[in-house]
Amino acid sequence: MNLPFARPLKGIIVPVVTPLLESGDLDVEGFERVMARLLEGGVHGLFLLGSTGEGPSLPPAMREQVIRIGCAQAAGRVPVLVGISDTCLAESLRLARLAGERGASGVVLAPPYYFAASQAELYHYARRVASEVPLPVFLYNAPSFTKVWFEPETVRCLAEEPNIAGLKDSGGDRIYLHQVRFLLGDRKDFSLLVGPEELLADLLLWGGHGGVSGGAHLWPQLYTGLYQAAVEKDMERVKHLHSLLMYVNTQIYRISPTPCSVFKAIKCGLSLIGVCGDAMAPPLEPFTPEERAVLKERMQEMDRRLMEEAAWLAAAPAGSPS
Amino acid sequence: MNLPFARPLKGIIVPVVTPLLESGDLDVEGFERVMARLLEGGVHGLFLLGSTGEGPSLPPAMREQVIRIGCAQAAGRVPVLVGISDTCLAESLRLARLAGERGASGVVLAPPYYFAASQAELYHYARRVASEVPLPVFLYNAPSFTKVWFEPETVRCLAEEPNIAGLKDSGGDRIYLHQVRFLLGDRKDFSLLVGPEELLADLLLWGGHGGVSGGAHLWPQLYTGLYQAAVEKDMERVKHLHSLLMYVNTQIYRISPTPCSVFKAIKCGLSLIGVCGDAMAPPLEPFTPEERAVLKERMQEMDRRLMEEAAWLAAAPAGSPS
Amino acid sequence: MNLPFARPLKGIIVPVVTPLLESGDLDVEGFERVMARLLEGGVHGLFLLGSTGEGPSLPPAMREQVIRIGCAQAAGRVPVLVGISDTCLAESLRLARLAGERGASGVVLAPPYYFAASQAELYHYARRVASEVPLPVFLYNAPSFTKVWFEPETVRCLAEEPNIAGLKDSGGDRIYLHQVRFLLGDRKDFSLLVGPEELLADLLLWGGHGGVSGGAHLWPQLYTGLYQAAVEKDMERVKHLHSLLMYVNTQIYRISPTPCSVFKAIKCGLSLIGVCGDAMAPPLEPFTPEERAVLKERMQEMDRRLMEEAAWLAAAPAGSPS
Amino acid sequence: MNLPFARPLKGIIVPVVTPLLESGDLDVEGFERVMARLLEGGVHGLFLLGSTGEGPSLPPAMREQVIRIGCAQAAGRVPVLVGISDTCLAESLRLARLAGERGASGVVLAPPYYFAASQAELYHYARRVASEVPLPVFLYNAPSFTKVWFEPETVRCLAEEPNIAGLKDSGGDRIYLHQVRFLLGDRKDFSLLVGPEELLADLLLWGGHGGVSGGAHLWPQLYTGLYQAAVEKDMERVKHLHSLLMYVNTQIYRISPTPCSVFKAIKCGLSLIGVCGDAMAPPLEPFTPEERAVLKERMQEMDRRLMEEAAWLAAAPAGSPS
Repeated sequence: MNLPFARPLKGIIVPVVTPLLESGDLDVEGFERVMARLLEGGVHGLFLLGSTGEGPSLPPAMREQVIRIGCAQAAGRVPVLVGISDTCLAESLRLARLAGERGASGVVLAPPYYFAASQAELYHYARRVASEVPLPVFLYNAPSFTKVWFEPETVRCLAEEPNIAGLKDSGGDRIYLHQVRFLLGDRKDFSLLVGPEELLADLLLWGGHGGVSGGAHLWPQLYTGLYQAAVEKDMERVKHLHSLLMYVNTQIYRISPTPCSVFKAIKCGLSLIGVCGDAMAPPLEPFTPEERAVLKERMQEMDRRLMEEAAWLAAAPAGSPS
Repeated sequence: MNLPFARPLKGIIVPVVTPLLESGDLDVEGFERVMARLLEGGVHGLFLLGSTGEGPSLPPAMREQVIRIGCAQAAGRVPVLVGISDTCLAESLRLARLAGERGASGVVLAPPYYFAASQAELYHYARRVASEVPLPVFLYNAPSFTKVWFEPETVRCLAEEPNIAGLKDSGGDRIYLHQVRFLLGDRKDFSLLVGPEELLADLLLWGGHGGVSGGAHLWPQLYTGLYQAAVEKDMERVKHLHSLLMYVNTQIYRISPTPCSVFKAIKCGLSLIGVCGDAMAPPLEPFTPEERAVLKERMQEMDRRLMEEAAWLAAAPAGSPS
Repeated sequence: MNLPFARPLKGIIVPVVTPLLESGDLDVEGFERVMARLLEGGVHGLFLLGSTGEGPSLPPAMREQVIRIGCAQAAGRVPVLVGISDTCLAESLRLARLAGERGASGVVLAPPYYFAASQAELYHYARRVASEVPLPVFLYNAPSFTKVWFEPETVRCLAEEPNIAGLKDSGGDRIYLHQVRFLLGDRKDFSLLVGPEELLADLLLWGGHGGVSGGAHLWPQLYTGLYQAAVEKDMERVKHLHSLLMYVNTQIYRISPTPCSVFKAIKCGLSLIGVCGDAMAPPLEPFTPEERAVLKERMQEMDRRLMEEAAWLAAAPAGSPS
Repeated sequence: MNLPFARPLKGIIVPVVTPLLESGDLDVEGFERVMARLLEGGVHGLFLLGSTGEGPSLPPAMREQVIRIGCAQAAGRVPVLVGISDTCLAESLRLARLAGERGASGVVLAPPYYFAASQAELYHYARRVASEVPLPVFLYNAPSFTKVWFEPETVRCLAEEPNIAGLKDSGGDRIYLHQVRFLLGDRKDFSLLVGPEELLADLLLWGGHGGVSGGAHLWPQLYTGLYQAAVEKDMERVKHLHSLLMYVNTQIYRISPTPCSVFKAIKCGLSLIGVCGDAMAPPLEPFTPEERAVLKERMQEMDRRLMEEAAWLAAAPAGSPS
């Protein structure tokens, strides 16, 4: 059953990690524990096969497995989005069809990431995907991975397509987000979601719709709490919870000097709390033992800070995003 | 039959285009005509599924088809390299096995192009591929597509692996090539091949081994002629032929303002001379009619220039590279 | 008389243009008219010899003239900051001394912009300037001009110096600003000012202190109005006025495809309303007649929009920033 | 007396360091020793106030001092070029006049380095400088310092000006150099000089004219020897001497992780052999004691290598460049 979602899609959407066995196969039980943790944690949606899920590194068969198990376990409780970005159009369409069959609520499309397409080429590409795909499509900017992105005017044009439901922006450029908002004007049903967690509160305070926040694997209530506080315009609470997110982003995510430290940190964090292992899909490698030890200390410091700020967190009830 | 090649691999290797029908399917006959043209043109090797071949944009089944038909048609007359670059290790290994079964002589591996791997991660990745693949592996730098590349010290370490046979560098950074050469020192069997055609003569004059030159689709003898002239240290001939290559690179390849103009120009040029169509795999789009008209004029100008320089070209016999 | 300012310095600080005669000399009367317009417009501070003021393009003697006339005309009514950025330490110190003698309230220091200094070198440099200069120093990030900037940890260290009073950030990176704020923690007297006008409202809503806003030359009440609205947390008014700023930033500032279009637009806009001429200091050149015509139309459109939003603007009284 | 030079200017031009006392003043005696060393070393020209000379960091009065002393000491024995790059046109013209009065042979102009000028603005700027300056002007590309550079087509247009005598390119992009050469065609009197030492041999082998080589402070005969070998097309000798340059560039210049390590290395190297001190103009700082110790070792290793290759060096007589 595909859970339809009210447009615009709102809330904290978690880009779910893909736990792996040392053999490289999917760690099915670990994946189920991750999913269970997130669903119990009250997050508002799930995003499979994104960057945090290492989608592009996984073999086609494992991508299917992730879609199948993930959708089944979500069982319509929250919307499930599926990443279909690829360098090959046919593979993107295949994943989208699978997602539709398995009950996903939408798909997420970044620009093809080998050749740099022009904006006109991107526009045609996304429009074609949207016309051939049975589910609402979210555009996805991740220029550090894909080099090119959907420029504001391209987003404005694509937002005219009924089947394009929103934009997930991981470009980290706040001015870009203001430009998109300015161009979209009164469009109320087009969802604006942000990747970098430092920008989540900013976006929400201005009426943006949500975040795709990997850190919610580790502290789901912190992220839903920040969401709730921002929606309620409770600036004092926003500031306290945002400050905790800043700790995560500056102290937890950047422990390794390698470019993809953030994804390694999340999996390693989950392994430190016993949810799944920290194996990464090639070419990425997990934290070294030294990095793991640093992470452990900083997670303890984070727990201390969460305790200190417990009053600000308490207010946040789980449930559907307002 | 896999044609073994004498190390280091030398000469003009053509990164073969993948002709497509309007339907998006492989244009088998067009592909055969392209292959025939190149084999008759006397080029020294073929590289299937590279960037010019739009490998990353092709579905898995079409990649197989290209390997099968390409290897069969080459039939051991010249070495065939197969691009196995992908974001997923399993797909790279699958392509390499197919290449081995079909008679290819080597495979070509760029860094996985979604996540930016660290140099240590790249080193482990390439070593693993080399150890699991039945054919010699060429490293491939294409940072405009893959963001990261094999840094000189990483190349030096990987060159220790017996199954790593060379480097194809399309980074366009001449200083990098000098650094690699300086680090490799006396290694005589490690092949240095260069992508950007402006650097081909430089590399050859210093004892580098060859070029991966898309322009040889259109003027194969020009490229083999330059190769021969450089190997013979005939500087006067080199300068004349290099100047023709500069015309190609500045006037033919950059007609479209889009980032991948060069690949479009080669296919459009082939279609202007009746070899195959100009359809590109999504997301790329062919030259517009206006761009095509400009290309037509410039190819005529190029013919005029080739005529003028005919004496410098004549000297170049087809055959195996010295 | 040097007007001391309460720390942290707050409000809309205008980076004053330097009007020039066709001869290249300072247009003294035009400069006086610009200054008068800004002082009457109720802005909260003035910044001489910044990027908008083309400070680095002006000869040493003209820099002195600007400091002398500007400080005299401000006459202690609002704080005057003076740009002392240069590639040569001695020139920066000379300008700072002149600023002190003429009654400026502070100086503004960007990293020396020829050689890229390391963070340690920048730290020592700024500390040395702060110790030798008689006025409070504001750090200035303008990486598009200076290549390097003061990284968050460097700002944190420099903020310990009693004579370093704030940071003017024109880097355009909102995440950077969150990082600086997170690192500074409870520091209440260190002024955070932002250059890019798209980020002004964001910064103010979080408790930042002001903007260095060139657009206030043309519509001073719009900028002071936005400031007031943000300080009062009147989100509805903020959104309306911010939307007008987005028009300025996307439609007015980017008319010319040249890199410094924004500075040309401000001077050309001032010339369209008869305040001063549009001559630029070499190497920059003014808008072409075509660009000027486009600007004229868009300023009329802007007037129309301002009229439409007049109710949101009315609320803003001139005066000292709260 | 201004030494006129035969066009195109050829040979190894040394970008002379500016020795400083700990007080920050010019180390006049050190400067004279540096100059004497270079003149005795047989280099073909001198370039004062370039990047290696830290020109942009020096106060106006010290720039005059350097021009006066440097020109007097060269005394017409070799051409002296003077760097006049600045962010302010008037200062560039002032330096050019001084250079003319003191007997320099030419001036060197990089793009103004604060504001990024468009190519049209750069063209007008350089043409204006050329028309007002009494000496031949060399264009100077140093994009790591100035952000923008003279694009090939701009160089072609400026090369039409009789008073523009050449291009010193420190962009490090070999393809750019091929493009400039291709566009300039038969222009035989326009000097092409290259900054990055790794590209010196390439340029000379193709008929380029020389290098602006900081390493010649330490090993002047190595650089003039490479020049001579390349002019004589003695490829074997070129390779041996180039390999020594590669050692300098990879092992000597990059000892410090700071961005301007190369300039620090040259001054520190001169101080290790007792020619002058290693003080740098702010914001740069000299090598740390640890870096200095590494440099000492590597210079000893370099001496060992020079000894080993002594036969290849011997051939190079000092004298005017052929």
